Amino acid sequence: MRTVYVNGDYVPEGEAKISVFDRGFLFADAVYEVTSVLDGMLVDFAGHCGRLRRSLGELNMTFDMSDDQLLDVHRRLVASNDLREGLVYLQVSRGAADRDFIFPPEGTPPTTVLFTQTKALIDNPLAERGQKIATVKDERWTRCDIKTVQLLYPSLAKMEARSKGADDAWMVRDGLVTEGSSNNAYIVTADGVIVTRDISNLILNGITRRAVLECARKLQMTVEERPFSVEEAHVAREAFSTSASGFVNPVVEIDGQPVGDGTVGPVARQLRDVYIAEMRKSAI
Amino acid sequence: MRTVYVNGDYVPEGEAKISVFDRGFLFADAVYEVTSVLDGMLVDFAGHCGRLRRSLGELNMTFDMSDDQLLDVHRRLVASNDLREGLVYLQVSRGAADRDFIFPPEGTPPTTVLFTQTKALIDNPLAERGQKIATVKDERWTRCDIKTVQLLYPSLAKMEARSKGADDAWMVRDGLVTEGSSNNAYIVTADGVIVTRDISNLILNGITRRAVLECARKLQMTVEERPFSVEEAHVAREAFSTSASGFVNPVVEIDGQPVGDGTVGPVARQLRDVYIAEMRKSAI
Repeated sequence: MRTVYVNGDYVPEGEAKISVFDRGFLFADAVYEVTSVLDGMLVDFAGHCGRLRRSLGELNMTFDMSDDQLLDVHRRLVASNDLREGLVYLQVSRGAADRDFIFPPEGTPPTTVLFTQTKALIDNPLAERGQKIATVKDERWTRCDIKTVQLLYPSLAKMEARSKGADDAWMVRDGLVTEGSSNNAYIVTADGVIVTRDISNLILNGITRRAVLECARKLQMTVEERPFSVEEAHVAREAFSTSASGFVNPVVEIDGQPVGDGTVGPVARQLRDVYIAEMRKSAI
Repeated sequence: MRTVYVNGDYVPEGEAKISVFDRGFLFADAVYEVTSVLDGMLVDFAGHCGRLRRSLGELNMTFDMSDDQLLDVHRRLVASNDLREGLVYLQVSRGAADRDFIFPPEGTPPTTVLFTQTKALIDNPLAERGQKIATVKDERWTRCDIKTVQLLYPSLAKMEARSKGADDAWMVRDGLVTEGSSNNAYIVTADGVIVTRDISNLILNGITRRAVLECARKLQMTVEERPFSVEEAHVAREAFSTSASGFVNPVVEIDGQPVGDGTVGPVARQLRDVYIAEMRKSAI
């Protein structure tokens, strides 16, 4: 049985509970981060802490744990749960208060929850065979840059993709791909240029995205950060996604049509290998 | 101390807890209803049950409590908490499961939570003096017809309105008012026509809205269900909102400009009185 962190306590998962009055439950008034663990070490922890602070700031949410305190909790959970490879999930909500659209009084303590999930990140079968993607309409709110728990639509989108025989969904706003259900989306054009949506309020600024683009530039690959259309995706030479839990995840089919020759492409494969090697070196 | 209902149990509010793995907390994968209570009786209970079923259906959420069972829980909470006037809040989530964008296996029990809130609904000071409204951009997702707990944006919008000295926000998409933070929005034109946004995926199909429009038609008032612009609202003769917790709530100021002569208008006042009288008769 997993040990879970809830507001300062380390408890068995069956006892990991929050109040029904928690604003995370009643208003989706909460933000989160997911940090991957390789060889028992945290990948790009500083990046996730930085983005957490930004999300909290955008929502005027008070949170008094330092990065060092968060690191300590992450490490204690990794150790207690004997986690070698997988994820640490962190969620902070605005706390529990009688239900009101108006924020609770200052001083209301936030709710902080962390738990681990064991997952094969390196030997991921999807990365071997490549993902099938279905494009779906992006019906989300327009502050997707804040990593809130308003994840119902991405969940529905992934279910819709599954119902079409695909592994995941890429969301499309005004004919242009925004991102995957829980990952950033990329194509490689016929000219070999890596294209991924530029950072705006319409997508999440991926921590893995940033690191992978840095790897690409070091490898002298050409990167364009700009919107791309579904039509461009359909004729791309390669495609892939990036996320903390998927690293670089090749795409071999979009909307039932093969991408390139329908097999995992060399750009995605190389980026995946280089990214994993870099992260293994820098994990803490 | 209030008694709260959680998955079949009636517990003191301090012990009313759910798992941190609840999808309501992790994914905002939950729907809700708020039923008002007058004289210890439930207002338009059938309407709320009907809309709950629709929300559950749109999200393919399983829920096996009958309307009669729900009525029983509502009544037991009203009795235990000695509630004469106020609200009963009901939330159903897709239940607790290890975190995954993919829905949990069939048979995963939903989480059902109900609690009461005491509130002066008849002698509401806001209804006496009239609300001040600030218009804000509607940044929500495009399935506002499903009553989900993805309420972060309405909460932020209400906070923004408060920071501008207003009581509540009206949200505006493409120059047209959609609805209030947790209510439907209406204007009365110079010709005396009541205008409120037509039902679509962009607004909630208010239970109070339906009953109030019925009252208006019985009173031979002219009703137009169509979008109206911020400019139309600024030159309206009257304005008001409707909701389960506010009934008919007059608006006397929009964006710092008085509506009509800046006092509570006769249409809103009459509709409020007639609606309350009707609901007192039909409450169960």
